[in-house]
Amino acid sequence: MRTSIATVSLSGSLTEKLTAASRAGFDGVEIFENDLLASPLTPEEIRARCADLGLTVDLYQPMRDVEALPEDAFARALRRARHKFALMRRLGADTVLVCSSVSPHAVDDDALAAEQLARLADLARDHGVRVAYEALAWGRHISTWDHAWRVVEAAGHPALGTCLDSFHILSRSGGPKDLEGIADIPGEKIFFLQLADAPLLAMDVLQWSRHYRCFPGQGGFDLAGLLRHVLCTGYDGPLSLEVFNDVFRQSEAGPTAVDGLRSLLVLQEQAGLAALPEPAVPTGMAFAELVTPDAAPVSAVLGALGFTRTGRHRGKPVDLWQRGDARLLVNTGPAERRDGTRLAAVGLESPDPAGAARRAEALLAPVLPRRRAPGDTPLEAVAAPDGTELFLCATGRPGLPDWRDDFEDTGAVAETGPGPRVDHVSLTQPWHQFDEAVLFHRGVLGLRPQESVDVADPYGLLRSRAVTTGDGAVRIVLTVGAAPADDTAHAQHIALATDDVVADARRYRAAGGPLLPIPANYYDDLAARFEFADGELETYRELGILYDRDAHGTFRHCYTHTVGRVFLELVQRDGGYRGYGAANAPVRLAAQHAARAFTGG
Amino acid sequence: MRTSIATVSLSGSLTEKLTAASRAGFDGVEIFENDLLASPLTPEEIRARCADLGLTVDLYQPMRDVEALPEDAFARALRRARHKFALMRRLGADTVLVCSSVSPHAVDDDALAAEQLARLADLARDHGVRVAYEALAWGRHISTWDHAWRVVEAAGHPALGTCLDSFHILSRSGGPKDLEGIADIPGEKIFFLQLADAPLLAMDVLQWSRHYRCFPGQGGFDLAGLLRHVLCTGYDGPLSLEVFNDVFRQSEAGPTAVDGLRSLLVLQEQAGLAALPEPAVPTGMAFAELVTPDAAPVSAVLGALGFTRTGRHRGKPVDLWQRGDARLLVNTGPAERRDGTRLAAVGLESPDPAGAARRAEALLAPVLPRRRAPGDTPLEAVAAPDGTELFLCATGRPGLPDWRDDFEDTGAVAETGPGPRVDHVSLTQPWHQFDEAVLFHRGVLGLRPQESVDVADPYGLLRSRAVTTGDGAVRIVLTVGAAPADDTAHAQHIALATDDVVADARRYRAAGGPLLPIPANYYDDLAARFEFADGELETYRELGILYDRDAHGTFRHCYTHTVGRVFLELVQRDGGYRGYGAANAPVRLAAQHAARAFTGG
Repeated sequence: MRTSIATVSLSGSLTEKLTAASRAGFDGVEIFENDLLASPLTPEEIRARCADLGLTVDLYQPMRDVEALPEDAFARALRRARHKFALMRRLGADTVLVCSSVSPHAVDDDALAAEQLARLADLARDHGVRVAYEALAWGRHISTWDHAWRVVEAAGHPALGTCLDSFHILSRSGGPKDLEGIADIPGEKIFFLQLADAPLLAMDVLQWSRHYRCFPGQGGFDLAGLLRHVLCTGYDGPLSLEVFNDVFRQSEAGPTAVDGLRSLLVLQEQAGLAALPEPAVPTGMAFAELVTPDAAPVSAVLGALGFTRTGRHRGKPVDLWQRGDARLLVNTGPAERRDGTRLAAVGLESPDPAGAARRAEALLAPVLPRRRAPGDTPLEAVAAPDGTELFLCATGRPGLPDWRDDFEDTGAVAETGPGPRVDHVSLTQPWHQFDEAVLFHRGVLGLRPQESVDVADPYGLLRSRAVTTGDGAVRIVLTVGAAPADDTAHAQHIALATDDVVADARRYRAAGGPLLPIPANYYDDLAARFEFADGELETYRELGILYDRDAHGTFRHCYTHTVGRVFLELVQRDGGYRGYGAANAPVRLAAQHAARAFTGG
Repeated sequence: MRTSIATVSLSGSLTEKLTAASRAGFDGVEIFENDLLASPLTPEEIRARCADLGLTVDLYQPMRDVEALPEDAFARALRRARHKFALMRRLGADTVLVCSSVSPHAVDDDALAAEQLARLADLARDHGVRVAYEALAWGRHISTWDHAWRVVEAAGHPALGTCLDSFHILSRSGGPKDLEGIADIPGEKIFFLQLADAPLLAMDVLQWSRHYRCFPGQGGFDLAGLLRHVLCTGYDGPLSLEVFNDVFRQSEAGPTAVDGLRSLLVLQEQAGLAALPEPAVPTGMAFAELVTPDAAPVSAVLGALGFTRTGRHRGKPVDLWQRGDARLLVNTGPAERRDGTRLAAVGLESPDPAGAARRAEALLAPVLPRRRAPGDTPLEAVAAPDGTELFLCATGRPGLPDWRDDFEDTGAVAETGPGPRVDHVSLTQPWHQFDEAVLFHRGVLGLRPQESVDVADPYGLLRSRAVTTGDGAVRIVLTVGAAPADDTAHAQHIALATDDVVADARRYRAAGGPLLPIPANYYDDLAARFEFADGELETYRELGILYDRDAHGTFRHCYTHTVGRVFLELVQRDGGYRGYGAANAPVRLAAQHAARAFTGG
C-alpha cells in the first residue's frame, strides 16, 4: 500500500522534513499546519517541492473545533475553513483532517454535529476538497471511532468521510471486541488512516498522545490487528504515520524517516500485505570483533581469560582469538584507530546469509560491501542503526563462504572442551535510536525483544533491553544512557558463558588479570538475602563474583577491567536463569565509576 | 527544625552525595541501601565520614515486604532484618524505614501485620533500633497513612512508629479533609517525616513517584499545609527530603543539594517555622546588561531602536543606553569577551536592597561583592542559579546608592516621553536547573510563577515559564531547551514594551535595522483566524509583526535579528493581555533558525 508520514513526526524545517521523507522512500506526506505556517515557501512552492521529491500531499491537518457549535461560532469556523480550503487548492491537497471538537462551546448533539459537518463538506466540495473527520480520544463529546463514524454516516455527504487514527482508537480500546465494527464501515468512507503506536502507559491520554507516540511495532498496541480490520473494509488509501514524540522532535529527520518507513514495512508483513524475504533468524554467535588502536591491553585480557591467538587475517591487522566456542577478533587496522577500543562488529550464524541480507536490504538496512578487499572471502553484512556491523556467517558449512578462510593459522591451538561461548554482547545505543534499534533487530533479524528495564547508574538512569532468539543462542543487550548523554561514555561489553565461573575467575586472576573489585557491603547484603553453602559466599567475595537468582535458576558473574569502552564479563547460568543480573547492575556500574576515578580513566 | 536528605536524591557516589549534603548545610542524611551497597567504604567508615562532615545518619532505608506474611516468609524477613540491624549499629543509624508490603504473598490482615511489626520491633529494640513504618501509595493492602498508623497503633510497641511521606500521602489525597487526622497522631509516634513534592500528573503512581518527584515548592502539592498538620502533633524529628527524580540523578550533586535545602527553608517559612528576612519584592526593571566582545553590532541595534548612549562607566568599558524608561548596559570588559554576546545581568528596582540581599543570602544565593572596584558605588547583587547577576537597585531614591552614579554623562540626551520600558527578559536555563530557577525567583525575590508552557521549536520542544510581580512591572521568562541540549544554543532576549509597535518597527527598519522576516503563510492564517481593520494585516505582514489575542486583550510583537545569543523584541500589550505570544513562538523560532541558516550564524 502507499505510505505516508505527517510532517509533525519529523524534526527540522518543512523542507528538511520533505527531503527526509522522500529519501527514506515514502510516497506521500501529511502537511501539518504549523509546519506550513513556519515555512518561507508559498503553498505553490511546497506543492512543487513535493512533486520534485516524488511525494503526494495526502492530507492537510488539522482543522479543529468545527462541529456541534452554536451558529455564530460555526459561522466563524466556516470562515476559517474557506481560507483553508483555498490554501489547500494552492497546496494540491485534497483531503483535510477535522478533529472532533474540544471547544467548551461544543454541544452534545449528534444531529447538529452531522448537520454542520455536512455544511462544511458542502463548502469543501466546492473547493474540490474532502473532509476526513476523526474522533480525538479527548474530544469533548465525540471521542471514539464508532461515535465519529455514526455522525459521518448520519451526515451522509459524499465529501465527508472518517479518518481512523490508531492512537485515538487503541488508547481507549477495551479490547479486540471494540474494533470489530470497523470492518463494517464502507471502505470508501474511510478517507484516511493514521498509524501510531505507543508504550502502554497509565497516564493522561492527551499527554500520552502528544509526547510518547512511536512508530508501529515500537510500542504496545496491536496495530496489525487494527490494520486487518481496516483492510476488510476495502480501504485503499495510504498507511500514514502521525507520531508526536519528544525524541523524534530532536533527532535528525533522515534516520527517523527511515525508521518510520521500516516500521510500516514490518507492519504490512505482519498484516499479510507485503512479501518481504523470509527472516533467517540467526542460530548463534560466530564472533565478536573489537577494534583498538593498541592490541596489547586487549590481548592481555584475552590471554588471561585462556584465549589463544589462533589466526591472523591474510590482508589486515586482525587477530583471531579463540577458546572453546568463543571467538573474538582484535582489529588494529588504521581506519579503526580513532575512537579507542570498542566493539565494532558481531558475526551471527545465519541459516541463510544471502536471504538474511536480502531481508535486511528490503527493510532499509545499509548493506555493506561483500568484500572489503579483493582477496577477502565474500561475506554478507549489514549495519545496525548504531553503526555496529552485523556479519551473516555460515561457519564451517560446506558450500558457503567461511569467514575463517581469511585467517591464516598461527599454529597455536585453542583450548577446547566445555569452554566458554559468547553469552551476550551489550551495545550502547545513541540516545535517539533506542526504539529504532529494538525494531531493527526484531524486524531485520527476527530476534525477540525482552522486557525493558531501568538500571540506576550513580550518574543517571540507564535503560536496557535484550533482543534474543527463543533458545538464547543469540542475545544482544541494547543499552541507552540517561539524557543528555555523552553516548560514548557508556561501556560496551562481551559476556562469556562458562560452566565454572569460579575456576575461570581464579584462572584469570592467577594470570594477572584484575577483576572488578566489588564492595564488601554487597556481600553482607547477599548474606542477608540468601543462604549459601559453607565458604560459597567467601569465594564470591574474594573474587568479586556477583550473584542473582530468579524463578528458574541462579546467575553468577564477574567483570574484567575496562579497556577503552569495552570490558568482558564471565557468566554462569544455572537452572535456566533468564536474565542478565540487572539487580546487580547498580553495584557493578558504581564499581566501574570508582575504578575509572581511581585510574583517572 | 533539623534538615536531612536521602542520598537517593543526589547524583554520584556515596561520598560525593555526603559531601554535597554537608556543604549545602544539611544536618543529616538518610542512607539509601543501594548507595551503601555500592560504596567501597565500610559502614564504620561511612559513619566516620558523616561525623567528619557534621552529618547525622537519621535513617537507613528501605526495608521492604516484612509484614502480613505467611510465617515462613516472615521468618526469612526477620533473618534479613537481623543482618540489617547489625549493619545499622555499625553505621550509627538508629531508625529504619519499613515500607508497606507489595509482596504477592502478603495477606490482608491488619492484626497479623501489627503482630509481625511488633515482633520486628522487638528484634529492632534488641539492636537499639527503631522501626518507622510507612504506607507506600501502591502498597498491596496498606497504602494510606491512616491505615499504616492504625496498624502501628494496634501493635503498641515502643520501638515501632510511623513514617509520614508527603508524596505517598498527597498523591492519594482527595483533599485537605483526608489530612485532618494526622494532627491526632501523638508526635512521639511519628518517627520520621519525608518530604517530596511532585507536579500534578495523571499517571501511574509508582512511575510518578520513581521519576517525577521534586523538591518542596517545585510541584503542585500543598506541603506547607501537610507540614502544619504534622507540627500540631509535636513532631520534632528532621524534615527530610526523599526525591526520586531522573534529572537530579544526572545533575551535579552540589547544586542539587543547595536547591533542596533552599526548598526546605522556603517551606519552613511558609509553615511559620523559620524567620527569614522579609521578601522585598522588586517593583521594576532598572536595567538589563549585555556583555559582548564587540559593541558595534549591539550598538547598531540599539541606535536603530532609538536608544541614545547617555553614559559611560567611570572605571570599566560599559556604556549606558537609554530610551524612555528602558536602560540597557553594554559591557565590553575583557572578562566578558569569551562567550560572545549574552544577557549577563538584570537590575531590579528593590524597595529594600539590603534586606533583599539578606534574604537571598539566607536562602543560599551566592551574594556578589558589593563593589567590583574601589571607586564603584556599593550595590547589592546576587547570582541566580543560571549565573545571571541580579542587581538590587534603588534608582533615584535619596539616601541610597544609585547605580547611575558610576556613569559619566556623555552629554547626549535620551528620548523621553511615552517611550519603551523593559517588558520582560527571557533567560535560557541550563537543562538541569529549570525547577530550581523557578523556586529561586519565587523564594528569593518573591516573584510569582505563571503556568509552564511547551513550545515547539523545529528541533525539539522548549519549556517556558514566567515569574512576575502581580502588576507585571517585573517579568522574567525562564526557558529551557529540549534534552540533550546544547544549553547555549538557545537565544536570550530583552522585550521592550512600546505604545506603538507599528511606529517603532517602522522607525527601526528605516534606520537600517532588519526585522526578523515572518513567512507569508503566517499572515494568511491570521486572516483565517481573526478579522482586521482595512490595511491592518498588510501592515503586520510588511513589518513582520506577530499578533495574538487572549480573553483580556491583544498582543503585537516583532523581533530584531540575533546578535550572539541575544535579540530584542518590541511588544505592545493592549487591553490587559497577559501572555507572551506563546502561540506565535513556533513561527518565530523557525524564522530564527532559517535566518541563522541563511547567514551561516
